[in-house]
Amino acid sequence: MKKKTVIFISLLMSALLITACSNTGDGNNSSGNTAKTNGTTSKKGYQTTGKTEDSDYQGVIRNGKYKASKARGVGITQEADNMLNLQSFESGLTSLSKNQFSPKKYVFQEGQILSRSTVEDWLDRQSGDNPMGLNPKDNGEKDAKKRNPMYIQQIEEQDYMNDNDGKLSLGGITIGIGMNREDYYQKEQYGSTYTSKISKEEMTKQGRIAAAKVLARVRKEKGVSSDTPIMIALFEQAPNDSLVGGSFYASTVSKNGNEIGSWKDTNLSSYTFPATATKSVPNDNDETSFEGFQNKIKNFFPNLAGVTAQGQYKNKSLQGMKVNITTQFYSQTEITSFTQYVAQAARTYLPTGIPIDITVKSADGSVQSFLSRDDGSGDFYTHVFSSY
Amino acid sequence: MKKKTVIFISLLMSALLITACSNTGDGNNSSGNTAKTNGTTSKKGYQTTGKTEDSDYQGVIRNGKYKASKARGVGITQEADNMLNLQSFESGLTSLSKNQFSPKKYVFQEGQILSRSTVEDWLDRQSGDNPMGLNPKDNGEKDAKKRNPMYIQQIEEQDYMNDNDGKLSLGGITIGIGMNREDYYQKEQYGSTYTSKISKEEMTKQGRIAAAKVLARVRKEKGVSSDTPIMIALFEQAPNDSLVGGSFYASTVSKNGNEIGSWKDTNLSSYTFPATATKSVPNDNDETSFEGFQNKIKNFFPNLAGVTAQGQYKNKSLQGMKVNITTQFYSQTEITSFTQYVAQAARTYLPTGIPIDITVKSADGSVQSFLSRDDGSGDFYTHVFSSY
Repeated sequence: MKKKTVIFISLLMSALLITACSNTGDGNNSSGNTAKTNGTTSKKGYQTTGKTEDSDYQGVIRNGKYKASKARGVGITQEADNMLNLQSFESGLTSLSKNQFSPKKYVFQEGQILSRSTVEDWLDRQSGDNPMGLNPKDNGEKDAKKRNPMYIQQIEEQDYMNDNDGKLSLGGITIGIGMNREDYYQKEQYGSTYTSKISKEEMTKQGRIAAAKVLARVRKEKGVSSDTPIMIALFEQAPNDSLVGGSFYASTVSKNGNEIGSWKDTNLSSYTFPATATKSVPNDNDETSFEGFQNKIKNFFPNLAGVTAQGQYKNKSLQGMKVNITTQFYSQTEITSFTQYVAQAARTYLPTGIPIDITVKSADGSVQSFLSRDDGSGDFYTHVFSSY
Repeated sequence: MKKKTVIFISLLMSALLITACSNTGDGNNSSGNTAKTNGTTSKKGYQTTGKTEDSDYQGVIRNGKYKASKARGVGITQEADNMLNLQSFESGLTSLSKNQFSPKKYVFQEGQILSRSTVEDWLDRQSGDNPMGLNPKDNGEKDAKKRNPMYIQQIEEQDYMNDNDGKLSLGGITIGIGMNREDYYQKEQYGSTYTSKISKEEMTKQGRIAAAKVLARVRKEKGVSSDTPIMIALFEQAPNDSLVGGSFYASTVSKNGNEIGSWKDTNLSSYTFPATATKSVPNDNDETSFEGFQNKIKNFFPNLAGVTAQGQYKNKSLQGMKVNITTQFYSQTEITSFTQYVAQAARTYLPTGIPIDITVKSADGSVQSFLSRDDGSGDFYTHVFSSY
């Protein structure tokens, strides 16, 4: 899997280089004119994206361009099953960071400390060629239980910046580490995929070991001082066949040096609705609510609508839902009527007091409309996509 | 093209039948219990979808199911180039209807008068087998200029209902007729596609002839009385290679009998941004605004973003915009930052006082976020799609 990732990234990077070349001399609308061209922190040397909600971070723009991560693209594969983990990893990391680095005070910057090659080396196995690998040495075994599994699947850095009179300085760092419960591997190239299972205990242990190493290494990086707050958050990857991504299970903040701080459980986990034979949600009432909603929706048209949802829990308390509805539409008026009906049913049946997003897709996968309620019990915002 | 349509519809209908069969006996959550099962207008025999905006119609539900059109699915083909015409046709028809049948007073019902086979016969050529065909007889010619072109491409009925104490009665009908400016045909099955061009004058003339015939026929249908208001609207289909759908160019209301009423030009037309060498928008200021926006956006990431838009004009005045942005994202945080930045740029550069929708897609076509402002000059509503 690692190989595939790297090849794909290379392709992407080639595409970027081509784009970048063809783009030379193109009008750059930057208004940060007093800044040096190469991302210094001189006065007015940066702009921000603005924000549309108080609870969001502003992002950093330099010379009209977004300051992208130095490790941009690491971890992106074309395999759809991983995309869920990637999405929940990234939004989860931002959410956790908000507890430590308030969006009111800090500006968000994509990770600028760890480069792509650094992160790739860390994610690989330790070996003669790669002493920095966080994953254990290859012991030569092919058997799922005898081989050394890959414990660490992804690493991401996020930087939180202080703004002093237009000068940006590093205010804090968050590092997310994605831990496998199932490590997929091939015994031979292009061969069948086998799975090494990793127990919860082993994952927890290996996560802490990796966190300590990462902390010590990040502390030594240029621009990081001994008292820069560094948050480290550990994420349990969902299996590849899961319909919901994984969750961050623990975090800690190092305020100084290599002192790792105490680990705090997040008690977060994600579930799918409706319940399956093997997995049900922590609170039966939520399942009942969802099923009432589902029954109300699915027979609206002569053809059945598919209704599923993802829910995030903190212990037994539902924190939010993402509902997906798929059906076959025959006209724009059907989409409008259906959306109104869904809004009515959602208001009646779905749990109140939590953020709920509902996406309505046609059978070919294109988004037709969507509904959203931040929290409370009032009306849903609705939007039907249309064109002239 | 007609053949393809019919075959595709048949496939859809087979799928529907299979779904319908597998669905027998399934729990139907209808609360319209006092209604007869087959769509009567007895008291409480129907429900509505509810509405989320005052300017929208409520739709009709019977026994927990949406009252779908009797001609459901006519005109749907899998060819993407036609989908734009279909979308603009349907939303345009609803918009025009609002002028005549206020959403405050009327409830929307999908067309129940014209059946699928009726509409299909009307859309076909006149022939011995099909005396009702609105398109001219096949004159045997294959040459683009000598053959009789197909003038009429699509027909849709919408019903507007009065609600008297829970009893629905027909309050008005809108019929949209889609007229070709280019008729695509094959000289032999699976052969190359040729085009017969139709002048604006010929389209206008043929549209009025068809409207008169359709009016007379609809008046005779069961349930339509001599004084039911019937609005007829004529739509100019956009060419298949257009990046924007066609527009309704004229409408009339018949208040009684076969009196067609006077035709009113809508002066509506749709354009794409940025302007091309062959087609520019009616108002240069709008083009300048759009290009300012486009320049601000396209260099945000190292890879270029594609920025296009559709605009609807009434004479030289812009009525609304649908902006489409496509770019390659590498993380959820990039999507969030980009969306905030787009909101800021849209507020600065795009015209004020008109509804604007902006959809942000990744290179693979999936919707990542969207922004919308109903009118005015304030902030955009933004939504970033995410999952747990």
